[in-house]
Amino acid sequence: MTHISAQNSPLNYSTHSAEYLVDEEHDIRVPVTRISQDDSPDGTANEPFTTYRTTGPGSDPTRGLPPLRAEWIQARQDVETYQARGRKLEDDGPKALRRGTASQEWQGEDRPPLRARPGKRVTQMHYARQGVITPEMRFVALREGVNVELVRSELAAGRAIIPNNINHPESEPMIIGRAFSVKVNANIGNSAVTSSIAEEVSKMQWATQWGADTVMDLSTGDDIHTTREWILRNSPVPIGTVPIYQALEKVGGDHQALTWEIFRDTVIEQCEQGVDYMTIHAGVLLRYVPLTAERVTGIVSRGGSIMAGWCLGHHKESFLYEHYDELCEIFAQYDVAFSLGDGLRPGSLADANDAAQFAELDTLAELTQRAWEYDVQVMVEGPGHIPLHLVRENVEKQQELCHGAPFYTLGPLVTDIAPGYDHITSAIGATEIARYGTAMLCYVTPKEHLGLPNRDDVKTGVITYKIAAHAADVAKGHPGARDRDDALSKARFEFRWRDQFGLSLDPQTAEEFHDETLPAEPAKTAHFCSMCGPKFCSMRISQDIRNEFGDSDEQARIAQEGMAAKSREFREAGGTVYLPDPSMPTVRATK
Amino acid sequence: MTHISAQNSPLNYSTHSAEYLVDEEHDIRVPVTRISQDDSPDGTANEPFTTYRTTGPGSDPTRGLPPLRAEWIQARQDVETYQARGRKLEDDGPKALRRGTASQEWQGEDRPPLRARPGKRVTQMHYARQGVITPEMRFVALREGVNVELVRSELAAGRAIIPNNINHPESEPMIIGRAFSVKVNANIGNSAVTSSIAEEVSKMQWATQWGADTVMDLSTGDDIHTTREWILRNSPVPIGTVPIYQALEKVGGDHQALTWEIFRDTVIEQCEQGVDYMTIHAGVLLRYVPLTAERVTGIVSRGGSIMAGWCLGHHKESFLYEHYDELCEIFAQYDVAFSLGDGLRPGSLADANDAAQFAELDTLAELTQRAWEYDVQVMVEGPGHIPLHLVRENVEKQQELCHGAPFYTLGPLVTDIAPGYDHITSAIGATEIARYGTAMLCYVTPKEHLGLPNRDDVKTGVITYKIAAHAADVAKGHPGARDRDDALSKARFEFRWRDQFGLSLDPQTAEEFHDETLPAEPAKTAHFCSMCGPKFCSMRISQDIRNEFGDSDEQARIAQEGMAAKSREFREAGGTVYLPDPSMPTVRATK
Repeated sequence: MTHISAQNSPLNYSTHSAEYLVDEEHDIRVPVTRISQDDSPDGTANEPFTTYRTTGPGSDPTRGLPPLRAEWIQARQDVETYQARGRKLEDDGPKALRRGTASQEWQGEDRPPLRARPGKRVTQMHYARQGVITPEMRFVALREGVNVELVRSELAAGRAIIPNNINHPESEPMIIGRAFSVKVNANIGNSAVTSSIAEEVSKMQWATQWGADTVMDLSTGDDIHTTREWILRNSPVPIGTVPIYQALEKVGGDHQALTWEIFRDTVIEQCEQGVDYMTIHAGVLLRYVPLTAERVTGIVSRGGSIMAGWCLGHHKESFLYEHYDELCEIFAQYDVAFSLGDGLRPGSLADANDAAQFAELDTLAELTQRAWEYDVQVMVEGPGHIPLHLVRENVEKQQELCHGAPFYTLGPLVTDIAPGYDHITSAIGATEIARYGTAMLCYVTPKEHLGLPNRDDVKTGVITYKIAAHAADVAKGHPGARDRDDALSKARFEFRWRDQFGLSLDPQTAEEFHDETLPAEPAKTAHFCSMCGPKFCSMRISQDIRNEFGDSDEQARIAQEGMAAKSREFREAGGTVYLPDPSMPTVRATK
Repeated sequence: MTHISAQNSPLNYSTHSAEYLVDEEHDIRVPVTRISQDDSPDGTANEPFTTYRTTGPGSDPTRGLPPLRAEWIQARQDVETYQARGRKLEDDGPKALRRGTASQEWQGEDRPPLRARPGKRVTQMHYARQGVITPEMRFVALREGVNVELVRSELAAGRAIIPNNINHPESEPMIIGRAFSVKVNANIGNSAVTSSIAEEVSKMQWATQWGADTVMDLSTGDDIHTTREWILRNSPVPIGTVPIYQALEKVGGDHQALTWEIFRDTVIEQCEQGVDYMTIHAGVLLRYVPLTAERVTGIVSRGGSIMAGWCLGHHKESFLYEHYDELCEIFAQYDVAFSLGDGLRPGSLADANDAAQFAELDTLAELTQRAWEYDVQVMVEGPGHIPLHLVRENVEKQQELCHGAPFYTLGPLVTDIAPGYDHITSAIGATEIARYGTAMLCYVTPKEHLGLPNRDDVKTGVITYKIAAHAADVAKGHPGARDRDDALSKARFEFRWRDQFGLSLDPQTAEEFHDETLPAEPAKTAHFCSMCGPKFCSMRISQDIRNEFGDSDEQARIAQEGMAAKSREFREAGGTVYLPDPSMPTVRATK
């Protein structure tokens, strides 16, 4: 059984430890990573650096995580158990039906599902609008380092969401909104060819080790219900799904056979399991479909094309649009958030910002406001493939039309010519779109357009998107965002190699790369870098300059006046940065 | 002997061939890559796609390339051979002196160096200002697909440069300027630990295979002269250097011992060899040095810190600044271009756009204009580490102050927290800065800050920067830039897998990634993608929609009116995208 706990995490670098921020008054513990640092060469202590952690406490996949939020939910006295739909064997597909069981049954506790008591709404938006501060709000306020009133007011206005289904009490609350740090989603999904259910759990844990803030389970095919059960019971982050995928399985893959009843049943099945947000492609209207006919790449969203095909085949308006109010009523009973799918997003630069895309966005704006009437939380999905100069327009238009509802975008890719490198082509667009207000970024892996991501691809995708999210936070001037950059750069300047690695997004890789050139242990503490070697180092001479001119303007002025004298001293004191050490290999500059 | 010719190039994908654009009237042949394409499913032919090629004709490293431009240079009758400085054994360092030879001597032809005849200037800027159209200008006009008068006028105004030393006749002219496609530089440099000279040539060839437009040889240490000789004789792209590195070798690494005379001698040595552009850190003035004292990361440029240390140690103004006019006179005799180094560039987000950086930029602007008085071509180097929201200011300020002289930037990195991934952190900034006018991007490899790049790192760096340069071209609306995106997306939509791979920046990697999921040969031509599998494909349903609604507005309107009838037809014709093929493995969606 693959089991990644916080203890054997890839992030469990020698300078890292898992700790908690504690609000004793409200009995709230927020997980963080504490990164210790060495002293500076002059003896000054460097405070440990504390970062946001999404990995959770770690779990045995067969037993799941403890239900962190269960007491908070019960304490509000607005939920009840009921005669639930529960699991049906056909939810796991034809093979399970034949076998009479899923390939791997859930072994842990089976809690009866909860829903709102009649007449109640149990969404964080509802509480926020009532002026109630929930433990979930306190948790995210502590996590983000902001005032809890900011959390409440952003939730009430619909400008932020806390996706946390009352049936997923294992999750640690997190917030998605432009006033908060930019978040990253990782997609996983089983493949009958290669994955077991436990492996899928391991992939979810792997993604959160590297910092994924939410995970979407896009599984299709066999054992879809049980796979989701295992993932939910083990996930410390919100889980999103695209329920139309499972609905399609239930009708044997024939999208023309889809009905509202089958879809509704699937949604309730997933609400009861604890899915925190669901992608609903309710903006693909019958009249928009012909707008895609002249595109270079037509409709590239799976959900979008299922609904487009259904609308055409039946010559009817989308059942998702027609029954949208009913969906809102269901979501309000479990606190499931809408992720309004952009089924007509562009799949190529040529199709960016076209009539089909923006027509759908108008409808998504309408659907946002309709959900808000039910106090249901909403985020809106965005593209796709967009040339860099058109990216900003996307987020500004979405924010304006949707009254600030959080934007959740896939990239966008800023060129189509680099399959195999689309984590990079999309990170460029992602940073730009987040800079102007996108609240969460859906990662893209190197396998995009080509195949299914493996573990390495998942890691590469998450780290690339942590870079994009962080760079956007810095560009937005998000409070404290640059602190980690400054700490790492200070460590770099002071030749504290271990601290430089420890403060980086991927300490092990940074250390490995360094060791390829200078494997010797003494090099870790040596006062030169591997680019220039012991013979000359620009960082070293800069330190000499600082030693000359000190650390304040006044000192600098004094120093400047006495420069002639100082220059003599400088030369007398050596005036060179040659640090002869015959034990070190000679390495040379490449810049 | 490592030997990569165009024939065994990694880019020699099955659909690629090396061809030439020919201007018969002027006897000019410009290399291009021709990418053949299959017909569309409806039988329409897809024209072969032609792209800019930088790989050159290929060479045996021991013999070098033919001197393509030799006749053009002689035909102007403004150059002469002379009693040249030539090579001295000490140019290759102490080991060569002891041995009486470099470790690997150049085996090919030794041409006597050329320089301008007395009173002549042989720079492309000079010719352009005289209204003369040179073969070099015709070559780049054909290469860029623009009118040659645009080339001439941009050169004359200093807004573009063609770096091509008359002693490097092997190079194929290329142009760097904001009116032209964005270019990419790759740094290489020998390391006594691991590289032989022939391997360094192979690295240069490897970088150009992947599309590097220029290469900087940043070698230091042993055999520096001979390494450069081999590289120059084999390079189809301009070669840049930082001569202060070699000058420092000549004084045993003691930067206080540097003198103008030693530097001048090194510059002439490299001019005679054929170096096309040289980084000169003449903007690091004595009075600017104290401005760096309070920085988080001081001075991170090697050349910058050498000069800062020298200025401080001698309490004198930089000899590069003091003797700048003499440098201009030398460069005008060989057509060497200045790459004015930003020795005070920020090495961390914290130091971006500070007083030291912009003080130096003021001086670089002054130096630009002084070089132009000698008709010497100039580009200006830029940072470094810059948060995304401050990137645009950098290029706009440089363009304004330096009257449009081409900007040549390293990244910039938009965050400091991801060592090991700085090709990505910097590609984000590079795309942004190029979008607003940077003409050439210096690549950053994953090893930046950590160690020396190996072959894989060089490839990753070049491809990442080709993405940035291309995305910027698209965002700028550069004529024709999006054609390749459109061709690839059309191939993707039509399930022409081989064409999709062939049109990508790295066909082999794209194909390998695809084959990991669907290795079977039939999958290459199958009408479904590996994400959704044969059971359902969104691209496929989009094609069905197109088939319904046709390709023109009018057809779409007609189709919309008759939608009810069409929807019946759609269903009667199958109305589903199920393509049962039991021989294919079942694969599942991950988005």
